[in-house]
Amino acid sequence: MPKSLGKDSTCSIARSLEVLGDRWTLLIVREALIAGSTRFQEFREALGIAPNLLTQRLTFLIEEGLLTRRTYQEAGTRSRHEYVLTEAGRSLNLVIAALSDWGRTRRARPDGTSPAFTVEDSDTPVRLAFVTDDGDQVGAGQLVARRTPDRELVGR
Amino acid sequence: MPKSLGKDSTCSIARSLEVLGDRWTLLIVREALIAGSTRFQEFREALGIAPNLLTQRLTFLIEEGLLTRRTYQEAGTRSRHEYVLTEAGRSLNLVIAALSDWGRTRRARPDGTSPAFTVEDSDTPVRLAFVTDDGDQVGAGQLVARRTPDRELVGR
Repeated sequence: MPKSLGKDSTCSIARSLEVLGDRWTLLIVREALIAGSTRFQEFREALGIAPNLLTQRLTFLIEEGLLTRRTYQEAGTRSRHEYVLTEAGRSLNLVIAALSDWGRTRRARPDGTSPAFTVEDSDTPVRLAFVTDDGDQVGAGQLVARRTPDRELVGR
Repeated sequence: MPKSLGKDSTCSIARSLEVLGDRWTLLIVREALIAGSTRFQEFREALGIAPNLLTQRLTFLIEEGLLTRRTYQEAGTRSRHEYVLTEAGRSLNLVIAALSDWGRTRRARPDGTSPAFTVEDSDTPVRLAFVTDDGDQVGAGQLVARRTPDRELVGR
């Protein structure tokens, strides 16, 4: 798995991409998060990924702390593994939602599908937005960004 | 540039990753969006990317409609190109912000840096959040997602 992106490993975006910069990795996270897949065969069938690549990516995701491996056993069969998102893995729903929004609006197609995010207990729909501390929503087109030390961003 | 991710090209996330699934691509967008880079040499120096790779990725981003190429000329020099984000490219700030949040919190390092997003005119800080239609913010850990046809998500 490639690691270094040259000059900017202090950058939070580059740090994310060191883990997530491989498409299969994010698609595996997507399957776990949205389809609820946990088993090797489920990932393999949903993604059409070669078994050796899937093994490699699952191992990488475990090493990086995004998945844990659990053992399960069905009656009369030998024990098998399943792969479950950790809290760090589940927290990627922000990234998954952002990618989904962009794909849905900027690469629209009539038969498209996207994850709909809802609050677990109440089924209330939510969407991703930029908000101020007062809770006002701000359109993505009205924003500027500048690089800032993380220690100045505590609480953001 | 690789294209197909197998079975799920209707998925909005897979559609995004067909464009964005290459790390250099997102790092070029990051440079344009946060550092305001527009020139070949600026991208090259900021990213430490090989010229042939950079040419390839810039061409790809133009083809995909995320960058446009403009001509500029400084006194006494021949004309050169600069690369400017389109609206579709600028709208990736949602993705960039989500990647940044994850890297900042899940791959923290003391010398880390991240983009701080603010409203262009007022300098009011904003952050990325899941919100309900009533404007309530919901923690990423309280959500579930299920795959839904895009036509049912109009207005979300």
